[in-house]
Amino acid sequence: MVGTTHPGNIGAAARAMHNMSVSSLVLVEPKCPIGEIAYARASGASAILDNRRTTASLQEAVRECSLVIASSARIRSLPWPEVTPQQTAEKIRELDAQTRVALVFGREHSGLTNAELQLCHYMVNIPANPEFSSLNVAAAIQVLCYEIFKMNANPVEDRQAIARECAATSHEIEGYFRHLEQVLTTTQFLDTENPGLLMQRLRRLYQRLEMTRSEVNILRGILSSVEKYRSRSE
Amino acid sequence: MVGTTHPGNIGAAARAMHNMSVSSLVLVEPKCPIGEIAYARASGASAILDNRRTTASLQEAVRECSLVIASSARIRSLPWPEVTPQQTAEKIRELDAQTRVALVFGREHSGLTNAELQLCHYMVNIPANPEFSSLNVAAAIQVLCYEIFKMNANPVEDRQAIARECAATSHEIEGYFRHLEQVLTTTQFLDTENPGLLMQRLRRLYQRLEMTRSEVNILRGILSSVEKYRSRSE
Repeated sequence: MVGTTHPGNIGAAARAMHNMSVSSLVLVEPKCPIGEIAYARASGASAILDNRRTTASLQEAVRECSLVIASSARIRSLPWPEVTPQQTAEKIRELDAQTRVALVFGREHSGLTNAELQLCHYMVNIPANPEFSSLNVAAAIQVLCYEIFKMNANPVEDRQAIARECAATSHEIEGYFRHLEQVLTTTQFLDTENPGLLMQRLRRLYQRLEMTRSEVNILRGILSSVEKYRSRSE
Repeated sequence: MVGTTHPGNIGAAARAMHNMSVSSLVLVEPKCPIGEIAYARASGASAILDNRRTTASLQEAVRECSLVIASSARIRSLPWPEVTPQQTAEKIRELDAQTRVALVFGREHSGLTNAELQLCHYMVNIPANPEFSSLNVAAAIQVLCYEIFKMNANPVEDRQAIARECAATSHEIEGYFRHLEQVLTTTQFLDTENPGLLMQRLRRLYQRLEMTRSEVNILRGILSSVEKYRSRSE
């Protein structure tokens, strides 16, 4: 973070980083004290603030880094190679674990100077409302760290698959449809002389559920309760 | 935003929303004044705060919405259908422009109550550091709105929206659940003294259907036929 003026932004950045498993915060010429306000916003990420490094220049901050990417909303006469947040994450994933990468975030009001931008290999542009495109600096850090974490994380789909209950078989689902048809005939909702598309529509509805076995059992339980209800009433 | 306690978070959320071209902010039972602090953090997005709506309950807030997605970090015994931020953006892209969607963000410290979660069709889980997974609420709004903006910035030709029928609103779906509960009580499938998790499981099942209005009407027709069947038998 270069020349940051608001301690709340530094604290919020620390929290966003820790949320996304990024740990190394470097402050280049910070313009504010890192005290109570920063720590309050950092919430559980105070270790990131404790372990921060402070440098007098961006050059010093990025000296060990092989890939330096600037996030800066200012428009410049000299166009810089641009990447999206996703491309940034892809570039980082391609590197080995020893290679150091810097993401550079400019001043809240004036971004990076041209001299600072010269130290950066790419400029990352967060897609945004063209009429209000400047994100808060901690929000920009959140978005970029999120893209990087997402690229490296185990997909959520895998966890869902593990947690997923046993899926109902086609045989069990067909059993449900037969039962449903029978009960709807009994309650006269289905007119067997003139069935129309009713069962077809209900199939379309329940089939897209991809029901689990226990869900089919609940639905059949409901149908049985309607049938028993009849025998009680008779 | 439900029960938000810090005005800075509401202001930061407004800025994040406006950055990503999202405009409709609803505060459910806010626990703080929306004044100087909120407006300072909103920066150029004060119009979002000016035009905010305030409601006394989440139910009232989402009444006209057909797709309700909760962002909540709390872990629950009964798993709710989970989606990633990207899948959230995909679901929203598939809807037509008239269909209203709610993204629901819980309280800073305690998230959403189970009753509030019941109103939501999906839970979105932002991939994060398992040891520090709770994002600041405005940061979570930033990430989700970013994914939605990014998805819409890359429009896809084959939108399903054209073919899609009119989606049922939250209000219509809640009407169905009330009717279902009533009929299940009548048929004694539901024991009101000892309801267990039955209604919760049925909600989870039907909510992931993303029903159309005409499907809700069919299902309510079935319930009515069970009720009439009773009166005929008596």
